[in-house]
Amino acid sequence: MPFHDTPRFPRGFRCASTNCGIKAEGNDLSLFASEVSATASAVFTRNQVPGAPVVVGRELVRGGRLQAVVVNSRVSNVGTGTEGLARARRMGVAAASALGIDASLVLMSSTGVIGVDLPIGKIEAALPGLADALQDDPMVGALGIMTTDTHPKAVSLPVGDATLTVVGKGSGMIEPNMATMLVFAFTDADLDAPALDRALRGAVDVTFNMLSIDTDTSTSDTCALLANGLAGPVEESVFGEALLQAFTRMSELLARDGEGATTLVRVTVTGAADVADARRVAKSLVNSPLVKTMIFGGDPNVGRILMAVGKCFACRVDPARIGASICGVGVLESGSRVPFDEAAVRGLLRGDPVDLEVDLGLGEGAARAWGCDLTHGYVDENAAYYSS
Amino acid sequence: MPFHDTPRFPRGFRCASTNCGIKAEGNDLSLFASEVSATASAVFTRNQVPGAPVVVGRELVRGGRLQAVVVNSRVSNVGTGTEGLARARRMGVAAASALGIDASLVLMSSTGVIGVDLPIGKIEAALPGLADALQDDPMVGALGIMTTDTHPKAVSLPVGDATLTVVGKGSGMIEPNMATMLVFAFTDADLDAPALDRALRGAVDVTFNMLSIDTDTSTSDTCALLANGLAGPVEESVFGEALLQAFTRMSELLARDGEGATTLVRVTVTGAADVADARRVAKSLVNSPLVKTMIFGGDPNVGRILMAVGKCFACRVDPARIGASICGVGVLESGSRVPFDEAAVRGLLRGDPVDLEVDLGLGEGAARAWGCDLTHGYVDENAAYYSS
Repeated sequence: MPFHDTPRFPRGFRCASTNCGIKAEGNDLSLFASEVSATASAVFTRNQVPGAPVVVGRELVRGGRLQAVVVNSRVSNVGTGTEGLARARRMGVAAASALGIDASLVLMSSTGVIGVDLPIGKIEAALPGLADALQDDPMVGALGIMTTDTHPKAVSLPVGDATLTVVGKGSGMIEPNMATMLVFAFTDADLDAPALDRALRGAVDVTFNMLSIDTDTSTSDTCALLANGLAGPVEESVFGEALLQAFTRMSELLARDGEGATTLVRVTVTGAADVADARRVAKSLVNSPLVKTMIFGGDPNVGRILMAVGKCFACRVDPARIGASICGVGVLESGSRVPFDEAAVRGLLRGDPVDLEVDLGLGEGAARAWGCDLTHGYVDENAAYYSS
Repeated sequence: MPFHDTPRFPRGFRCASTNCGIKAEGNDLSLFASEVSATASAVFTRNQVPGAPVVVGRELVRGGRLQAVVVNSRVSNVGTGTEGLARARRMGVAAASALGIDASLVLMSSTGVIGVDLPIGKIEAALPGLADALQDDPMVGALGIMTTDTHPKAVSLPVGDATLTVVGKGSGMIEPNMATMLVFAFTDADLDAPALDRALRGAVDVTFNMLSIDTDTSTSDTCALLANGLAGPVEESVFGEALLQAFTRMSELLARDGEGATTLVRVTVTGAADVADARRVAKSLVNSPLVKTMIFGGDPNVGRILMAVGKCFACRVDPARIGASICGVGVLESGSRVPFDEAAVRGLLRGDPVDLEVDLGLGEGAARAWGCDLTHGYVDENAAYYSS
């Protein structure tokens, strides 16, 4: 199931985006809509201080049906109390009214600065025009949900007679933990609600939940999947495989465009006592500031890999069995550094992607995690994000 | 119990340091010795890939007696297999021989790059001269244990008729977890082994274990306490209080000199359901890259405080009860941002130290953590540490 060269929508889905005045420049409001209502499932951040749209979204998704998603960027509507909840609801009502559908069918998402009131008047004023501007290119919707992302992100692929399209945004405050940044997936496959929910949770667990830009779990993470059924039934396992492919691709796009990132980092752990241990070790490596700066600098300080394995206190680790390679070049064996071509490894660390493979030599547990390097750009963007 | 303006040693302790050729410049080998053998206790890193000196040190300390500590910097003797263990032992034997004491009384520590063989020949050649050069200024010993530290660190204070002196080094790969970077404490107080051990563990738990520069737990963390008894008995509670003071001061010195740091960050959490929750939330704040970059940038993006509280999944959190202040200026109340003088808070964020106070409004649990901001300097130092 190869990806389309240019992302397209499934039958019945369209989108639009505009600048409604929240950002000084660039699109800041997107609307995604289906012609007919869709079976829907969503997962949200585990952060205990969730944004108002997450609180309202959890209620909405219980109904199992959605027809549209409205998303603004720059202001996250988090830490805004009961007035924030009211504004999140108003955002959904305004989109529903513009589309002529029931407000219970509209999921709203907001992303950006925490603790700032949502400019709901600007959003309400812009929505009728946005509903009139719906068109067929998912990249247009991807544009309006960007915060510090450097480019819009959407992918699509065929799945049986249907199409699956995934639109997402990154790029900091990302260690999803049971959900993800903002990702919206649309399909015209016909799947019942339990099958859709299983597919979503199964794919999120091994993709977005294994992605970390900076260990900071957002208050706004949302991943929703809408299936409008217009292309007829698709076998659950076939659909699940396509969703896994698309979410893997989107995870790599998000990691590579992490704040300040110069490269995608993929960590593959094998030989762990079990999968849970493999996941913990993979996350430890992808989150270690010292591993991330080593990659940024192209500096083969490979002992840091041992450190990042060893700090997984809850995992079974035998130092004498740890092996590791960088983009296929062995650098550690039996827990010790082995001679390797340093110049070659410097070159590989400066390439994209950087693959770190760690074998714990203990069992069959395996896992993969995605991340990026840690750079001046990350510090710059986040030292002045509120002000800029 | 005020600190001495200039750190001094307790009766019977002396030290020396030199460049033995491991570093291109700067002292890289230190020796600390007591005239008589001392009661001793130590705690070590929880990293599961500990350095050879940690493995050997754990055995040595079981005896409860030490008379000297020998420390090199630049090469950590981690990830070096059985030959690494042999070299760690040779380092202790060489120091013992130079001092004319039993090798079971010499603790060795190494810190620096992981996975590189210890240049044991250079160390053995230098030790006789170092034993002859022992002198009274603890700062001289502190010099030889520095890696990326920008200055040597030692403090001392009177405790009853005795003196307590603490020598330490930072400054990256620090989230100690049950031990700490390298800290050596010396006293002429007479305490029995159980009392010394209780005092050490009690003080470490609320100081070095609440310090984090970058979430990366070192493979070499060691904190040892030697009491030679030359000043006679000191009450355990009085000694414990002095140790707590000295370790708190050393934690602040280490945090402020964290790699690339421009300021010390102190996080105080109150109102938690219990102390364990308070500790987790304090650590989450002090470790959050987005909180740390906000401080570096002097950017009052205070919603990030809510995010860092909310990502403590295992803690009791009620968003509507969270309050927070920055250096005494209230910025969050009842989980929402409150109006505050932004220009004033920008100024406070650029000062030193930066105090973040968070009240969870739930119970009596309180804790404090120490850290630093995240800067270009951290990225620079760690992008080329191995090569430089």
